Amino acid sequence: MAATVTTASGATWQEVAADRQKHRDATIAAIAPPLPEITDTPLNTIPLAKKYLTAEEIKITESYVEDLVVQLANGAISSTIVIKAFLRRAALAQKATNCITELLPQRALDRAAFLDKYLADHKKPIGPLHGIPISVKEHVGMKGLDLNAGFVAWVGTVAEEDAHILQILWRAGAVFYARTTQPQSLMHLETSSNLYGVTTNPFNSTLTSGGSSGGEGALLGFRGSCLGIGTDIGGSIRSPAANNGVYGMKPTSGRLPMGGMSATMLGAEHIVPAVGPLSTSLKGCKLFIKTLIDNKPWSKEPSLLPFPWKSEDFFQGRKLKVAVLWDDGVVKPHPPVTRALKQVVEKLKKSGNVDVVEWKPFQHDIAWEIIASLYFCDGGGEEKAATDASSEPLRPLTRHIIHDNPHMEHHTIASMWTATKRRDKYRADYNAVWNETATSVGPNGEFEGTVDVILSPVGPSAAPKIDTAKWWGYTSQWNLLDYPALIFPVDKVDVEKDGEKVKYEPRNEKDRYNWDLWEKFGAEGYKDAPISLQFVGRRYEDEKVIQALEIVKKEVALPFVEYI
Amino acid sequence: MAATVTTASGATWQEVAADRQKHRDATIAAIAPPLPEITDTPLNTIPLAKKYLTAEEIKITESYVEDLVVQLANGAISSTIVIKAFLRRAALAQKATNCITELLPQRALDRAAFLDKYLADHKKPIGPLHGIPISVKEHVGMKGLDLNAGFVAWVGTVAEEDAHILQILWRAGAVFYARTTQPQSLMHLETSSNLYGVTTNPFNSTLTSGGSSGGEGALLGFRGSCLGIGTDIGGSIRSPAANNGVYGMKPTSGRLPMGGMSATMLGAEHIVPAVGPLSTSLKGCKLFIKTLIDNKPWSKEPSLLPFPWKSEDFFQGRKLKVAVLWDDGVVKPHPPVTRALKQVVEKLKKSGNVDVVEWKPFQHDIAWEIIASLYFCDGGGEEKAATDASSEPLRPLTRHIIHDNPHMEHHTIASMWTATKRRDKYRADYNAVWNETATSVGPNGEFEGTVDVILSPVGPSAAPKIDTAKWWGYTSQWNLLDYPALIFPVDKVDVEKDGEKVKYEPRNEKDRYNWDLWEKFGAEGYKDAPISLQFVGRRYEDEKVIQALEIVKKEVALPFVEYI
Repeated sequence: MAATVTTASGATWQEVAADRQKHRDATIAAIAPPLPEITDTPLNTIPLAKKYLTAEEIKITESYVEDLVVQLANGAISSTIVIKAFLRRAALAQKATNCITELLPQRALDRAAFLDKYLADHKKPIGPLHGIPISVKEHVGMKGLDLNAGFVAWVGTVAEEDAHILQILWRAGAVFYARTTQPQSLMHLETSSNLYGVTTNPFNSTLTSGGSSGGEGALLGFRGSCLGIGTDIGGSIRSPAANNGVYGMKPTSGRLPMGGMSATMLGAEHIVPAVGPLSTSLKGCKLFIKTLIDNKPWSKEPSLLPFPWKSEDFFQGRKLKVAVLWDDGVVKPHPPVTRALKQVVEKLKKSGNVDVVEWKPFQHDIAWEIIASLYFCDGGGEEKAATDASSEPLRPLTRHIIHDNPHMEHHTIASMWTATKRRDKYRADYNAVWNETATSVGPNGEFEGTVDVILSPVGPSAAPKIDTAKWWGYTSQWNLLDYPALIFPVDKVDVEKDGEKVKYEPRNEKDRYNWDLWEKFGAEGYKDAPISLQFVGRRYEDEKVIQALEIVKKEVALPFVEYI
Repeated sequence: MAATVTTASGATWQEVAADRQKHRDATIAAIAPPLPEITDTPLNTIPLAKKYLTAEEIKITESYVEDLVVQLANGAISSTIVIKAFLRRAALAQKATNCITELLPQRALDRAAFLDKYLADHKKPIGPLHGIPISVKEHVGMKGLDLNAGFVAWVGTVAEEDAHILQILWRAGAVFYARTTQPQSLMHLETSSNLYGVTTNPFNSTLTSGGSSGGEGALLGFRGSCLGIGTDIGGSIRSPAANNGVYGMKPTSGRLPMGGMSATMLGAEHIVPAVGPLSTSLKGCKLFIKTLIDNKPWSKEPSLLPFPWKSEDFFQGRKLKVAVLWDDGVVKPHPPVTRALKQVVEKLKKSGNVDVVEWKPFQHDIAWEIIASLYFCDGGGEEKAATDASSEPLRPLTRHIIHDNPHMEHHTIASMWTATKRRDKYRADYNAVWNETATSVGPNGEFEGTVDVILSPVGPSAAPKIDTAKWWGYTSQWNLLDYPALIFPVDKVDVEKDGEKVKYEPRNEKDRYNWDLWEKFGAEGYKDAPISLQFVGRRYEDEKVIQALEIVKKEVALPFVEYI
């Protein structure tokens, strides 16, 4: 249903926001049985689930995609039962973290009933995702529903059809039941908008859920979803996956369908976003990506690359070779991140089945300059127009990335071509650095024995304090290079283990800002925050990155702690 | 050796041009035995070869790549003998058509001697192109040689290393021996520059060799080369291949290596050029492309797509489905082109092994508006700077495509994003039109039985009169869509067969301009000009397009006439 309270119809931005929240609350109130008000959000909200949900609901919502798929396909559990459980936990997640823009109980229940009937009638599932609940970041268009991309002025825009990705997932059997929050402009590594306020971290309410797919992150971290859709142009799938202790993948661009999403800067080709999954399991991410690729999305969306899913064994008995990026040379990670890296490295080395080498960062400071000069090539014109149209104020991190960004340029065509050539030069140089890890060179110049994946932090800290997630380098680096990157949970901040003081003299202002946060808040301030890491592969090696993590998970039990 | 007479060193553009021509002539004069001056170029220059070359030279130079490869690999013929023959015929081609910027006799002979020794020592060829002479369009950089891209002011720029494509072909065994002409700005469908003047058509000196790879076209048409390198952003491989009765392919962008070429508008991503082969045989084109792809050029050039060469059978016993584009709805082809199409269609239908349907052009007029608005996004600023720097005058077709182009825009970032979105919309629409040719739709929305390739004219006439090649639509259409397109020779203009008057009332000014040319010059004016057609496939279906032509060549003897 189209929103009627809009700035176009004369409402103030506050009135529009209030109306959207009222609408959201109505969809939450429609969940049966109803959830209580949470008046005093605990620091760690995870225990709320045990308090307010049934044992069956907990069991279902804490199941992994790969298990639900089997049970749904063989009728051991009905789609209706599953979606009811996720609707209730999502409603609770909203109360705990403010991660929902609307729930879709009626649509979802109708869909589940259809799927249950389909299974009963046909004795087989409708597709590989039969009955799987999938949560969706708001700016991925859903037919007939509001599509505002986090801007107050855009409320009232209605998607004419489902985004291409949703069409395919629908055919595969998905149930869409929840739409999730995103920040103003979509360009924060947090989730803060004038429409819905701030989305917080379910493990520690003083921390951000990350962003821009931060509604997804919080919802998955809380287990109100087992599989969700995010988008990423600088870290927007990965930061929320990492901050909430779930898996998440930013594939190489051009592999998964992008049609039907709302955002500023559409038409820009300098740095292109990717859509991808967040999931409570690696297998959930893999099934999501494989299902989409198996459906040949390129046949309808000609900007996509017609690469089939590669199911070959990339290693064939040889050792996986992992290179460790301890520090990008710009902003040093907080001690918990380094501790997580150390643990993984030690265990991998101990396994004897994985080669571990060091990755020397190659000009990551320059990489940031380049990508930061290519994000808002119109000088942030579209963002300004979108916020001015409702007179909504700029959120702090919108200001940070557009107005306080010294590398941002209002480009001419000529200056943009120059910046694009600089980007391409950097990509070629980085590629050469990777080739230099070869242990031998073949007769036709083939580089043999190169590093398979880089093991890297996802950010310079565990989930940041609200409005402090300012250094994008650990994620945007791989957007600039258009490399696939896969997030996995490792540990969580522990007041005992991370409490020791570390002496460090920051190298620059960004480094100082980040280190000062640690000095100020310490382990206590980040208590319980998940710590995650990422595997990064070369361009288009998405399947290999997934396989690398499968290998590592066999060698090393991950994560090292329980989150739920 | 770097040019020393340059505008940067104070020379006038005329002095620079004279010096470049002097240099070229010196390289021609170095060919032994020397070729005579041709003082009175005949209308059809092809017979000159028989007059001035030995029978052995003729036999070698009229051999196809696939035959030379075998003879060179088994030592039946030496690389030295082969390159000497091609050097002589290329020297003659220069005198006949003005297609050469410089020959490289010493480099080529040294290389051939090395390859002959290699074969003798190792009893095997160095690679799949052992000893094959390859001619190269000038703007593809060669280490230590001038690299001017057709601009007088750029003379004096020297390539620091071989272009990536040359490095691979070199490893495969190629011998580079000739560099060929290109037009001012590289943005003509002819070849006319202030450095070297006009390159003419070997079959009819009053006609253009096409462009921008027009030096290649004339050289191959004259059989001074059997395999050459061109580039194409609007028809620049295809127009010269077609005008000279040889094969030529513009692959999908991102498949073959582009590093190390000189041109304006580098950094532009809105419409991207492709490099590709011109060859006297289809197998020559295929071997060229396959060799490059088999060398995994993406490992060094990260902007390329890591698609291996697809060697599967795309048809597996089913019929090839060809759709015929008779007329793009904007500029109607001259009668010889239509006659060639009719002949091919009739024979294909008669064969019974190919399905032939009609292709209704979808808004090709709009397609031209879109691509013409995306070529010179900086308002032609780089071209203006490059010509202003030497005060060289604009050639008529430079003026045509930049200054007299009503769709050309000096874009802002905002207007370029809008134009890019318009491009993407058009691509999606055209893709949907193609999907609509399906005879059935599968359960997952697969389009089955769609058209395999479009059979299309390459231009609205056979090789045009000098300075009249103004309608790019038949080739630029496929650059806008980034579809692979493969040129093949069919027939030639015949005064008897094409002499009949055809009554036609042109639909628009462009159409009138083209038809008036036919009215004015008639078949006599285009006498002997090769008539070629193209097969166009969907994005990234390069291998399928080649296979389609292989099938058609089995069904229908092509071309219908002898050129040489």
